[in-house]
Amino acid sequence: MTVYEPRDPDWEARVRASFARQAFMTTLGVEIGDLAPGAVDLVLPYSSGLTQQHGFFHAGTTSTIADSAAGYAALSLYPKGTGVLTTEFKVNLLNPAKGERLVARGRVVKPGRTLTICKADVVGIDGTRETHVATGLFSMICLEGLED
Amino acid sequence: MTVYEPRDPDWEARVRASFARQAFMTTLGVEIGDLAPGAVDLVLPYSSGLTQQHGFFHAGTTSTIADSAAGYAALSLYPKGTGVLTTEFKVNLLNPAKGERLVARGRVVKPGRTLTICKADVVGIDGTRETHVATGLFSMICLEGLED
Amino acid sequence: MTVYEPRDPDWEARVRASFARQAFMTTLGVEIGDLAPGAVDLVLPYSSGLTQQHGFFHAGTTSTIADSAAGYAALSLYPKGTGVLTTEFKVNLLNPAKGERLVARGRVVKPGRTLTICKADVVGIDGTRETHVATGLFSMICLEGLED
Amino acid sequence: MTVYEPRDPDWEARVRASFARQAFMTTLGVEIGDLAPGAVDLVLPYSSGLTQQHGFFHAGTTSTIADSAAGYAALSLYPKGTGVLTTEFKVNLLNPAKGERLVARGRVVKPGRTLTICKADVVGIDGTRETHVATGLFSMICLEGLED
Repeated sequence: MTVYEPRDPDWEARVRASFARQAFMTTLGVEIGDLAPGAVDLVLPYSSGLTQQHGFFHAGTTSTIADSAAGYAALSLYPKGTGVLTTEFKVNLLNPAKGERLVARGRVVKPGRTLTICKADVVGIDGTRETHVATGLFSMICLEGLED
Repeated sequence: MTVYEPRDPDWEARVRASFARQAFMTTLGVEIGDLAPGAVDLVLPYSSGLTQQHGFFHAGTTSTIADSAAGYAALSLYPKGTGVLTTEFKVNLLNPAKGERLVARGRVVKPGRTLTICKADVVGIDGTRETHVATGLFSMICLEGLED
Repeated sequence: MTVYEPRDPDWEARVRASFARQAFMTTLGVEIGDLAPGAVDLVLPYSSGLTQQHGFFHAGTTSTIADSAAGYAALSLYPKGTGVLTTEFKVNLLNPAKGERLVARGRVVKPGRTLTICKADVVGIDGTRETHVATGLFSMICLEGLED
Repeated sequence: MTVYEPRDPDWEARVRASFARQAFMTTLGVEIGDLAPGAVDLVLPYSSGLTQQHGFFHAGTTSTIADSAAGYAALSLYPKGTGVLTTEFKVNLLNPAKGERLVARGRVVKPGRTLTICKADVVGIDGTRETHVATGLFSMICLEGLED
């Protein structure tokens, strides 16, 4: 895995503060997992309010945490005084999203001044069993003057 | 716009019943708007629990209603005794997702026995002003023996 | 359809000149069809050197002309002294790519200073019969100092 | 990397025979590189007929070999008597496609009876220097009665 050098020494505090301001993360119950420059894991425990018509996690929850994990992976490499917005993403849903919790692993594929390209994989975890639920690609734009 | 002939005369009741079973739609506050065979609109009123760090609707909410609108557009054309799952989708986020409500317009582009390809556009509405928030493409698979 | 105002009065000459420099368009035999600001059609006549293993146009030819049509739709709205690069795209292949020729219709969905989002539809044409072969979404970046 | 068990012992001969029937591969000058079940590399040497307006490999060539590498990775795991078609794909173009040759590395992410999901990375190679040119995700459908 590529090791990235953060441009903002306070990257971790900045990621945590931005995450805390995302009300939708609280609504879903998403928690921050492992954090490193260019690599952010988010965890979503199962709750019956997150399901689709067959009782699995809704594809919307899977893609939401994939997108947020990818976005924070990008933000972790941004210089101070900039913010992150997703401009587009694509996900393939590989298996029904089942498990005690979902974990989204956001990783920077190619950092850039304007666009940072990320990937994210989502797994469903039941005890020690891990199922590959989704994989996706994300384009993140770096905006100056947008507080994050 | 293409006019499609539904294969299940009870398509509308089936779409409404499946939607009612999606707990995540209730969690977000999504409502069904206009319905026609191959065309489903979903409405998401603004609520502070749905926002990202800059106060806009979270991209996850935008893509969730786009995906659900596209999925129900597909399901409206499915024969009895089958269910729908999203296999993949892609969204471009065009403008910040602002407004009193978001409306997702799911439309079937190409129906098929196995795969149905859909598009969805999401707009933010403030009074009479409409902003194009997102556009996406979706692949829906038709599964026999999956109750929907 | 949205009507766009070009920022460069010489947009058409610029699109034609850039197209003429794309050697790959000549290799494939692609021709320019209808042109308007934000809307570019490209035409690819059938040739046996363009096929995949079942004798249809190769998906690579379909996506190539879709990408080029989308890119030139974007370039037609760019200011003088800038160039266009595709940063990402997604295509759904709807029907086998058959016909005397393929036509790709590139359209700007959302112009922007940095990113312009486009869509493209590809149809296969046999006499007067048109088949919808592919639909896609494209992100085009505007680069200053890149001659196009 | 996942190791896959091919269902057709003649998978390699089948992949090579299908590749040989893709006239478009010959037109471009694509060659088969390394082959393993679920993993196919394709190589495209530089040629001036493959370029876009700035002299790089055209994005269409990059996505063509990515798509073909992914498709043959899928086909390598298919049972006898079936064929492969791409139903959709998405690519992010990460760096200008420069080099003496491009190499596309197609890998199966999730095999399936109907849909096989693949990824592909394309690199540009100059001497010993490798540049990451593109990354993409692909959905391949397995069709019975389609000779491949």
